[in-house]
Amino acid sequence: MSPRIVALGGGHGLYATLSAARRITSHVTAVVTVADDGGSSGRLRSELDVVPPGDLRMALAALASDSPHGRLWATIIQHRFGGSGALAGHPIGNLMLAGLNEVLADPVAALDELGRILGVKGRVLPMCPMGLSIEADVVGLESDPRVSRAIRGQVAIATTVGKVRRVRLLPGDPPATHQAVDAIMNADLVVLGPGSWFTSVIPHVLVPQLVAALRATTARRALVLNLVAEPGETAGFSVERHIHVLAQHAPNFTVGDIIVDSSRVPSEREREQLRRTATILDARVEFADVCRPGTPLHDPARLAAALEGVLQRGATPTGRPQTVPTPTVNGPRGDDPWR
Amino acid sequence: MSPRIVALGGGHGLYATLSAARRITSHVTAVVTVADDGGSSGRLRSELDVVPPGDLRMALAALASDSPHGRLWATIIQHRFGGSGALAGHPIGNLMLAGLNEVLADPVAALDELGRILGVKGRVLPMCPMGLSIEADVVGLESDPRVSRAIRGQVAIATTVGKVRRVRLLPGDPPATHQAVDAIMNADLVVLGPGSWFTSVIPHVLVPQLVAALRATTARRALVLNLVAEPGETAGFSVERHIHVLAQHAPNFTVGDIIVDSSRVPSEREREQLRRTATILDARVEFADVCRPGTPLHDPARLAAALEGVLQRGATPTGRPQTVPTPTVNGPRGDDPWR
Repeated sequence: MSPRIVALGGGHGLYATLSAARRITSHVTAVVTVADDGGSSGRLRSELDVVPPGDLRMALAALASDSPHGRLWATIIQHRFGGSGALAGHPIGNLMLAGLNEVLADPVAALDELGRILGVKGRVLPMCPMGLSIEADVVGLESDPRVSRAIRGQVAIATTVGKVRRVRLLPGDPPATHQAVDAIMNADLVVLGPGSWFTSVIPHVLVPQLVAALRATTARRALVLNLVAEPGETAGFSVERHIHVLAQHAPNFTVGDIIVDSSRVPSEREREQLRRTATILDARVEFADVCRPGTPLHDPARLAAALEGVLQRGATPTGRPQTVPTPTVNGPRGDDPWR
Repeated sequence: MSPRIVALGGGHGLYATLSAARRITSHVTAVVTVADDGGSSGRLRSELDVVPPGDLRMALAALASDSPHGRLWATIIQHRFGGSGALAGHPIGNLMLAGLNEVLADPVAALDELGRILGVKGRVLPMCPMGLSIEADVVGLESDPRVSRAIRGQVAIATTVGKVRRVRLLPGDPPATHQAVDAIMNADLVVLGPGSWFTSVIPHVLVPQLVAALRATTARRALVLNLVAEPGETAGFSVERHIHVLAQHAPNFTVGDIIVDSSRVPSEREREQLRRTATILDARVEFADVCRPGTPLHDPARLAAALEGVLQRGATPTGRPQTVPTPTVNGPRGDDPWR
């Protein structure tokens, strides 16, 4: 039986998860954030009524068939127009998604149709059937460091020189794409992250129907942490802080497993600290070599191996998340080569 | 054996021929003019190095598969973006062709790939592998009606209030797309027209390799005349004048058959005159009901019947075009119900 994996995220982080997940199964569903307002997506949103296509297009490319036609169309949709005119910088796939959406009047039907051209075995879905905005409370922009200012827009948030405290979606409490809810409910494994924490990962848990499905599903739930603290929205963030801000945005949200690159947390003292922090998500921490050596990128094969490990541990019982034994700081741990 | 039909033209006229030809055979090749500088094609040419895609896109739509996917994609590529932004008015198919051409660096490969998505059984080819310009000598624009002025650009020529005397391509003597030459040489029937006479029909005979192939092929050659004199470039043109200007642009070019809508030339006197004029192309004139009643458009089924009639008369011997008996003005004609 080929497992059903749902990956939630956006941008390059989601591309990495999808590249890993497709090695495990052909039943991969991407659930993608829809608040991008930069680049080609931002330009298209400003002139057409369209769910921002950029992250959706990247997800389609990640799941394209390995056939010559699939690879060709993955290249085609990712190709950006040259020149310096009205089209310059637009990836072809963004224009195709915008056009398909105009003809079919349904972002999911548009994605399914472009997915068919690419031979995508799984499915790519927007987390919400409409474009959203994102707003953040940011400190450190005024002379008084306690003063918080609201910053609106994904690009503005991702590049702020201040510290992001909290994000919210506009309009608030948006509907989830019902096919995304169904996919989460029927999954064997749901993966959240990696990705831009405030703008690609946390938005999913701000959609009420989505977080409800994430709580209710019998699927194993895994959180994949970033390899590095991104400049801008999470500059200087510790691994623990990533977990804290996620928990703060989604009370009562739990995951079974947190996958952390071993090299990110080399010392046992830090690992113990991380295991304690993970208990706020009721999570077990899996230290694994998931980085492509010499890069700040997840290696698809290594991340796939880590996700397969999670799958083999079986489903998290609904409503009764797997409780990991709270580690004793000084006690022996079997998975610690230092002891 | 399914016959091989090559249709040369551009715009709505070519769409009509292709809609007819596909009823006869799945081996249809469209050879399309490449001098359009208006609308979406003009905007794309001004910012990207691209063969003007509009007429090529229309030809693909005309040959799209009758399957649900073929019909859907024919609708998609013809759909024009709404709004009032940078994309407004661009048909999706034009952007796809421009993008495919950037990725594949070959207009024929781009057309073949989009044709595959549409399930096109035949093939759509540009008459020349690069965009061209067209220039016309036009009289009637000055106070002295004998003074001729050079007007450049397809839109300018198609809409001139003067009288077009002659057109030429820029650069002169452009190369033909070699696949178009091959298609003409291997065809059973080659159809020129209908369409905007100076800007969609005559350009083909101004490409030396193309007119050489049209002269050398063993295929039956048919010319389909327009149903009405178009405003602008051929305003007020008689049927005969259409034949004269074609002959003037392509000395020694002959066709076996000229298909004329019966209602366009109702009287026997006019028909005799037309038969005499047709001898300058060594052509037999076929009067047929090819019009969709109540419209100025060719009816695909009726035009198909007329083309099948031409096919059944067999190939025009190479170098020895079928000589039609020069009609005697007062003699009896079997095809004339009045005598």
